[in-house]
Amino acid sequence: MISVVIVGTGNVAQNLFHAFQKSADVNVKQVIGRNKEHLAFVKDDALISTEFTSDITADVYILAISDDAISTVAEYFKDVDGLLVHTSGATSVKALKSVLRPGIFYPLQTFTKGKIISFDDIPMCVEATNENDLNLLKQLGNALSNTVVEINSEQRKALHIAAVFVNNFTNYMYTMGSDICVEHNLDFSLLQPLIKETAAKLDALTPLQAQTGPAKRGDQQTLHNHLQIIKDKHQRELYTLLSNAIKEKHGKEL
Amino acid sequence: MISVVIVGTGNVAQNLFHAFQKSADVNVKQVIGRNKEHLAFVKDDALISTEFTSDITADVYILAISDDAISTVAEYFKDVDGLLVHTSGATSVKALKSVLRPGIFYPLQTFTKGKIISFDDIPMCVEATNENDLNLLKQLGNALSNTVVEINSEQRKALHIAAVFVNNFTNYMYTMGSDICVEHNLDFSLLQPLIKETAAKLDALTPLQAQTGPAKRGDQQTLHNHLQIIKDKHQRELYTLLSNAIKEKHGKEL
Repeated sequence: MISVVIVGTGNVAQNLFHAFQKSADVNVKQVIGRNKEHLAFVKDDALISTEFTSDITADVYILAISDDAISTVAEYFKDVDGLLVHTSGATSVKALKSVLRPGIFYPLQTFTKGKIISFDDIPMCVEATNENDLNLLKQLGNALSNTVVEINSEQRKALHIAAVFVNNFTNYMYTMGSDICVEHNLDFSLLQPLIKETAAKLDALTPLQAQTGPAKRGDQQTLHNHLQIIKDKHQRELYTLLSNAIKEKHGKEL
Repeated sequence: MISVVIVGTGNVAQNLFHAFQKSADVNVKQVIGRNKEHLAFVKDDALISTEFTSDITADVYILAISDDAISTVAEYFKDVDGLLVHTSGATSVKALKSVLRPGIFYPLQTFTKGKIISFDDIPMCVEATNENDLNLLKQLGNALSNTVVEINSEQRKALHIAAVFVNNFTNYMYTMGSDICVEHNLDFSLLQPLIKETAAKLDALTPLQAQTGPAKRGDQQTLHNHLQIIKDKHQRELYTLLSNAIKEKHGKEL
């Protein structure tokens, strides 16, 4: 049984808390948050603390807080004997340099306010400074997920950038699609099966293989027609840039 | 029972054929393709023709062929009494001006070579020039799908552009993510749960609500760090453009 203290009250903290509660291998000893109201997701009052220090002994302390607070909050825990990890994709393990046993416990997923999701398929990316700590984090990861991978800080930052492309930027493509639908009195939900199939294609194909569309085909007529219809300056710029990029990637003449 | 002739041998033609074969309400009388080998998906030889004309009488003739061939091939069918439709999102109904009863039967989905998918959730976008023909297409659509919508040529073109954003451009974001993974010795499959959840979020949220990430948060430090890591000129350009667009969309100061 691995004992943990969770620091934070956001989407990651809440999802970790609920997932740990379901695991027979993990005992959540405390959840710490500055604001008591934000700790309402912890039904058991005995587990709650509003002090950013811990007099509770645990195997792992998890800082599930915003990136820019990590090094400051880590200072409060510099004397704990347990492993102290953060859950950020973008932050180096060096942000925890004040603590005795630093590590990373990064769930590669997007978390939504109020939505509790299963960790079964979420890759847990772990990093530590020695073999024992690494094994402990792997054990903790395995208590939640079927995919636990050791990834160093360099790789994790690259993975986070890749995540920005496939998640944040993809969602922005959805936003553009939605804007176009609104402008033409179309129900955006018509595009949902397409959106899901676009993601599902990757089960069998690489993104390079899965690419379709007028730019991929080098279909100048359709590209031209589309640009005649798109009025919004920003959408035109994006349409042109991405179409050219796809043409170039797939070896079509520009 | 609606009788149909399918013209074409590509992904759309193959998927339509298989879906119609499963429906008790539709009878495929013929599948026409120039190349006999490409007609191998039709197991029954009696249904096959390599002549781009039809002496077979059917209620609906479906041109599931490339956009630029539509008006030429339509000419061959100008004397048929049945309804003649194409399946293209980008092509106006005017491309069928030579035929007696033109219409559109546009499945809003991405089709992959060799992959047969269910039409249950695929929006079938239909258009015709009179009420009777429209009703026939709605009936045909309902034989395949739970979602049949009447959409005019203007709207369909806009929908197709929206589809380019959420499908083709999204897939390009996946490609960038994959490139970054390869560069840093990371397995792209680590990103798959994230990609699926990004799409699944739209079940409950609009894309505007679903937006997350450093640009949305206005997290300059992470944006700066990412740009220090991204070496590829094209990726940097894309990262900057899309981050600024997200910041602007969500009212963050540039």
